[in-house]
Amino acid sequence: MNLTGINESRFWGWLMHLAELTEPGRPWTRRAFSAEHARGRRWLSEQMRSLGLGVSIDAAGNLIGRLQGAASCPGTIMIGSHSDTVGGGGRFDGIAGVIAGLEIVAALEDGAWPLRHSLEIVDFLAEEPNEFGLSCIGSRGMAGALEPEMLERTNAAGVSLREGLIAVGASGAPAAAVRHDIAAFLELHIEQGPVLEQQACEVGIVTHIVGIRRIAVTFKGQAAHAGTTPLALRQDALAAGARFLLDVRNEIDAAHAQKPFVIATVGEIHAAPNAPNVVAGEVRLTLDLRSDETAGLEAWTQRLHGLAERAGSAARAPLSEYRMLSASQPTACAAALTSQLRRAAGTLGFTQLDMVSGAGHDAAFLARVAPAAMVFVPSRGGLSHCAEEWTEPAALAKGIATLLGAVRRLDAGEIMGA
Amino acid sequence: MNLTGINESRFWGWLMHLAELTEPGRPWTRRAFSAEHARGRRWLSEQMRSLGLGVSIDAAGNLIGRLQGAASCPGTIMIGSHSDTVGGGGRFDGIAGVIAGLEIVAALEDGAWPLRHSLEIVDFLAEEPNEFGLSCIGSRGMAGALEPEMLERTNAAGVSLREGLIAVGASGAPAAAVRHDIAAFLELHIEQGPVLEQQACEVGIVTHIVGIRRIAVTFKGQAAHAGTTPLALRQDALAAGARFLLDVRNEIDAAHAQKPFVIATVGEIHAAPNAPNVVAGEVRLTLDLRSDETAGLEAWTQRLHGLAERAGSAARAPLSEYRMLSASQPTACAAALTSQLRRAAGTLGFTQLDMVSGAGHDAAFLARVAPAAMVFVPSRGGLSHCAEEWTEPAALAKGIATLLGAVRRLDAGEIMGA
Repeated sequence: MNLTGINESRFWGWLMHLAELTEPGRPWTRRAFSAEHARGRRWLSEQMRSLGLGVSIDAAGNLIGRLQGAASCPGTIMIGSHSDTVGGGGRFDGIAGVIAGLEIVAALEDGAWPLRHSLEIVDFLAEEPNEFGLSCIGSRGMAGALEPEMLERTNAAGVSLREGLIAVGASGAPAAAVRHDIAAFLELHIEQGPVLEQQACEVGIVTHIVGIRRIAVTFKGQAAHAGTTPLALRQDALAAGARFLLDVRNEIDAAHAQKPFVIATVGEIHAAPNAPNVVAGEVRLTLDLRSDETAGLEAWTQRLHGLAERAGSAARAPLSEYRMLSASQPTACAAALTSQLRRAAGTLGFTQLDMVSGAGHDAAFLARVAPAAMVFVPSRGGLSHCAEEWTEPAALAKGIATLLGAVRRLDAGEIMGA
Repeated sequence: MNLTGINESRFWGWLMHLAELTEPGRPWTRRAFSAEHARGRRWLSEQMRSLGLGVSIDAAGNLIGRLQGAASCPGTIMIGSHSDTVGGGGRFDGIAGVIAGLEIVAALEDGAWPLRHSLEIVDFLAEEPNEFGLSCIGSRGMAGALEPEMLERTNAAGVSLREGLIAVGASGAPAAAVRHDIAAFLELHIEQGPVLEQQACEVGIVTHIVGIRRIAVTFKGQAAHAGTTPLALRQDALAAGARFLLDVRNEIDAAHAQKPFVIATVGEIHAAPNAPNVVAGEVRLTLDLRSDETAGLEAWTQRLHGLAERAGSAARAPLSEYRMLSASQPTACAAALTSQLRRAAGTLGFTQLDMVSGAGHDAAFLARVAPAAMVFVPSRGGLSHCAEEWTEPAALAKGIATLLGAVRRLDAGEIMGA
């Protein structure tokens, strides 16, 4: 025990134990719907029971540990994240937020600080990309965003998501998972970026989670012989793609310090025929555009469209497609929760930074049915989704302590009308 | 018959007949070592015999029709190109140069213009990329450049090139194909580029065939989350690749009108992990660099290396590889032959242009053992290696007439010391 109420060696032991339940030979891998994932959840259930929580799996496959409130205050305080990982991922993405919940339950017990409200610790099902091609399955379900047609999606073996849900202990009817009693949802997560480390801040208070647009961008030129076609006569689709990619970088870089937050990336490129001795006739890129404001997403979608048209014209390989592949809305975290997180961190003397989450999280779905907020802890070198993912125990402890402080502050108030 | 001695309807009929011997459903395809290719050669052999030529297949698989000279002048005049095509190619690349040879034999007969020197019409084996991963097989063999280890290459079915040669009627010992009696080698080919059409010239006199270097260029940055990694902290390998590609274009474009001739292309790109939501950690490009001078190739190899290093530094994704994958030497055409081609075209009143061939040809190998030169005819729209490949009958007739004129001029002189 220390002044923050958090027991560093306890939660670190839990964290490393769960991390070690990995696909053998491919650390750290615990894909949703896998045997390792089930093994992790059995272990989590045991820990929850040991801490006196009532354990259940809801209709959307979320593993929930519930601590009944001392008083019959309306509204549940919920803490959660996910225990699944990407393939060859790290030891923090997801489970840090679940273990944080367990540590808070244990710390409340240590401190003899009973909560008036009921508290739930949730391991959301399948936040990461998985065999059904749909992320955030559990949090979608809890938010009523798991559409019936999504349940019919099948994996490579022909198993439907509905069957997959049943296999992990859920009912085949996830509508029953929708919750309207959540008074506050709090998620702790590693930052997955380098900002906290670079700015030497201890905790990040997430004000917004970005909306993401994926846009297919295709330039069509004319495949031509690399030796016999003078540059001036080429219709080089790769030149158009390269120009667009660099123009996007320049424009976004110039908007760096402005509001709204915006970031854009071209990380995927396909050239055709993609042969060394042929001028590329066609290039397809995927543009990934993120902002914390819907208006910003729309404005940048238009602005980058203009850049694409210019790049195509300049290389005589006109833009032939600029098509939205997917679009999610930005999420604003609940001011009532972020203010309590800021106060909790401030009371504990932690340096803190308001920030936008450039990655999606379960919290973005929970925000559809409840006030929701997030705390970030630093990621060493900004690395994530890789074996090198790392957060120091003491750094993680500060995030959990902030969360605990906010939970106690929220519990002390009247957070949900009867 | 017309004033040039060339019978347009005759050679056009032959050309279209041979072109139609294509892989069914995939015009115009006659891959080397295929049944269609063999069918084309049987037909060619019949035409050669009808014209009074002695027909044979040499030790490197070249189909040769020989017309014995009227006088016993030393040295053979050779005309040739290839009857194989790329998959889904055109009706001119290769066969135009073989049919030109047949038309010249016929025109000499029509005109009662017997040659003093022996004349050979050659269909070189497998000029295009083929199942053995080695182009210009027949011309390499005739030039003594078919190395023993090349004969051990196997196709997907495990058949060796040596066995492939035997299957097309060659011996398994191509060293016997090497020739030292060729006094002049002349090849007519479509330009495969737009220059003659753009400059409204009727025949191209090829002064050089480029040497080609292929260079693997790799940039290594750091794969990172597209949402959480600020631009300033990215090590974006795709940005490095895009910058390099555009810098190469700019530099080469600026050298457009200068000597030596140079052209460079990036037509192949591979990004990793190539995912829309991940900043690219690695990008591999292939640089295709061509010049008519060895010194030019070397200077540009160095200069573009410098550009690659700059592009990598600018994007914080350093150049990790700049490695020569293959290198061929430039070929100078024989001045004694190009001057006769120019005179022949001039006498016939054709507009002509000295030009560099940016593509490789059988003539580049023949030049190792004999004086060699080439005549180009215009390609409509510069298109080649596609079904749209086209040269008008009258345009092709001018190329063949130029070749005939040069053959008669060469034959009249003493072209090879006894």
